[in-house]
Amino acid sequence: MRWKCGCSYDGTDYFGWQTQEGQMSAQQMIEETLEGIFKSRVPIQGSGRTDTGVHAEEQVFHFDFDWEHGGEKMKKAIYSRLPKDIRVNYVEEVSDDFHSRFSAKAKRYRYQLFMGTADPFAWRYCWSVPERVNLNTMKEAMSLLVGEHDFAALAANRGVDYESTVRTITHAAIELENGYVNLSFQADGFMYKMVRTLAGTLVNVGLGRIGVEDVQNFLDTKKRTAMAFVAPARGLFLERVFY
Amino acid sequence: MRWKCGCSYDGTDYFGWQTQEGQMSAQQMIEETLEGIFKSRVPIQGSGRTDTGVHAEEQVFHFDFDWEHGGEKMKKAIYSRLPKDIRVNYVEEVSDDFHSRFSAKAKRYRYQLFMGTADPFAWRYCWSVPERVNLNTMKEAMSLLVGEHDFAALAANRGVDYESTVRTITHAAIELENGYVNLSFQADGFMYKMVRTLAGTLVNVGLGRIGVEDVQNFLDTKKRTAMAFVAPARGLFLERVFY
Repeated sequence: MRWKCGCSYDGTDYFGWQTQEGQMSAQQMIEETLEGIFKSRVPIQGSGRTDTGVHAEEQVFHFDFDWEHGGEKMKKAIYSRLPKDIRVNYVEEVSDDFHSRFSAKAKRYRYQLFMGTADPFAWRYCWSVPERVNLNTMKEAMSLLVGEHDFAALAANRGVDYESTVRTITHAAIELENGYVNLSFQADGFMYKMVRTLAGTLVNVGLGRIGVEDVQNFLDTKKRTAMAFVAPARGLFLERVFY
Repeated sequence: MRWKCGCSYDGTDYFGWQTQEGQMSAQQMIEETLEGIFKSRVPIQGSGRTDTGVHAEEQVFHFDFDWEHGGEKMKKAIYSRLPKDIRVNYVEEVSDDFHSRFSAKAKRYRYQLFMGTADPFAWRYCWSVPERVNLNTMKEAMSLLVGEHDFAALAANRGVDYESTVRTITHAAIELENGYVNLSFQADGFMYKMVRTLAGTLVNVGLGRIGVEDVQNFLDTKKRTAMAFVAPARGLFLERVFY
C-alpha cells in the first residue's frame, strides 16, 4: 500500500528536508516518527529537497506500508507524535505508480521580503530589506523570467549536475501586503537555490544595484556572476506541489 | 546618566526576562550585549518579569551609564549586536528619578488563543484550542474581572509573597481576528501568572467546563481551585508598559 502525505514545516531548526548523516532534517524527524508508530523503519520519499532554514506550507512525500486503519487514523497517529514545527496535513492512499517526485508536474514557491526590519516574531519567515525597493523595475525584470528559459546563470553553480538547465516558469507575481513584498514563482521544476537566486537578483534590481538588462543578460549568456545574489533561506516557502 | 529602553522579544528560546544562574534570559542577553559595547558590566532593571516562553512587544528597562553619543547611536549599537529574537525599539535619556518598575503606572497584556490547530509557523505565539469556545460566556465572565478585586484565587499561589493581592483591571477585551481570539487585559499591576490564569480560566468558561458564577466565586472566596487553569506561556505577550 502506498500513502501520499502533505506536510508543513518551519525549517528554522532543521537541516533542510533531506536526511543526512549527523544532522536532524525534517525527513528524518518524520521517519523517526513513523518508526515509532509502525515499529519498523519506513523510508519516505519527498517531492524534492529544501535547504536548511527553508519552510514548507505544503511539502509532499510518499511511502509504502501495509496499514489497515485508513488515512485519517494514520494522520492522527503521525500528527500527535510530531514536534510542533512539523505538521501532517493529510494522508491518503494512492496507487503504486504515484511518486511524490517523479509524478510532480509543477511547484510553487513564495519568497517573503520585509521592507524594513522584521520584528522578533517575524525574522524566521522573511528577509528584511531596510532600503526602499523599486517594485516597477522588479516587476519588469520578473516578466523576463516567465516562460521557457535556460536558468543556468540563476541557480547554484556548484555540486549539482542537471541533465538540462532549462525550466519553464508558468507564473510569477509580486504582491505587496502589510510591509511584505511576496514574490511567487510557479514552474515545472526548480534547480538547487534557483528561487533564492531569482529573489536575490530581483531585489538587486529593486535596489538599483543591477539593471533589468542584466537579468536579460543572465538568460542570454547563461553565465552566473556575483550580481546574481542568493537571498537568505528563511524567506522561502514551498507553497504547493502540483500533480 | 539614566537611559530608558523599549524592547521586543520572542520568549521561545529564553528562560524568561529575569537573569538567573545557568540559564539564558532576555535580560542577560541584553546585559551581555551592553558589556560588549560599554566594556563593563552594566546591570539593567526591567519593568517586571516575564516567564519562560512569554513574549514582549514592549518590555521597558533602564540602566545607568555615562555615554555622550545620544540615544539614537546607542540604540543602533545595541540593535546591531543583539540576536534576531530581541530588538531594541528605542533608547532615550531620562531623569534619574525614572525607574522602569516603580514608575510604571499600568501594563497591558494580550493572550492569543487559536481556534483550531495552529500551523508550524504560529505555534510559538498562541495556545491552540481545538474545541469551539463560547465567546458570549467568556465575555460575561471577563466583565466580572474588570475593576478593583482581590485576585488571590487567580494568580500563582506559590513562591511569591505580595503585600496585597488586590489589583485594578481598568480594561479587558476579547477580539476575534483570523481564527484567533485575543484577550487583552490592562491593570495597575499583575501578579505572577495572573494573566495566564485569567486566560486559562476564561477558556474553561468558554468550553463550558466551569460557569460564569465560578469566576465570581473565585473573586468572592479568594480561594484557588484546579478550575482556575494556567494557560501556556507561549500565547502571552506583554504589549505595553505605561508611565
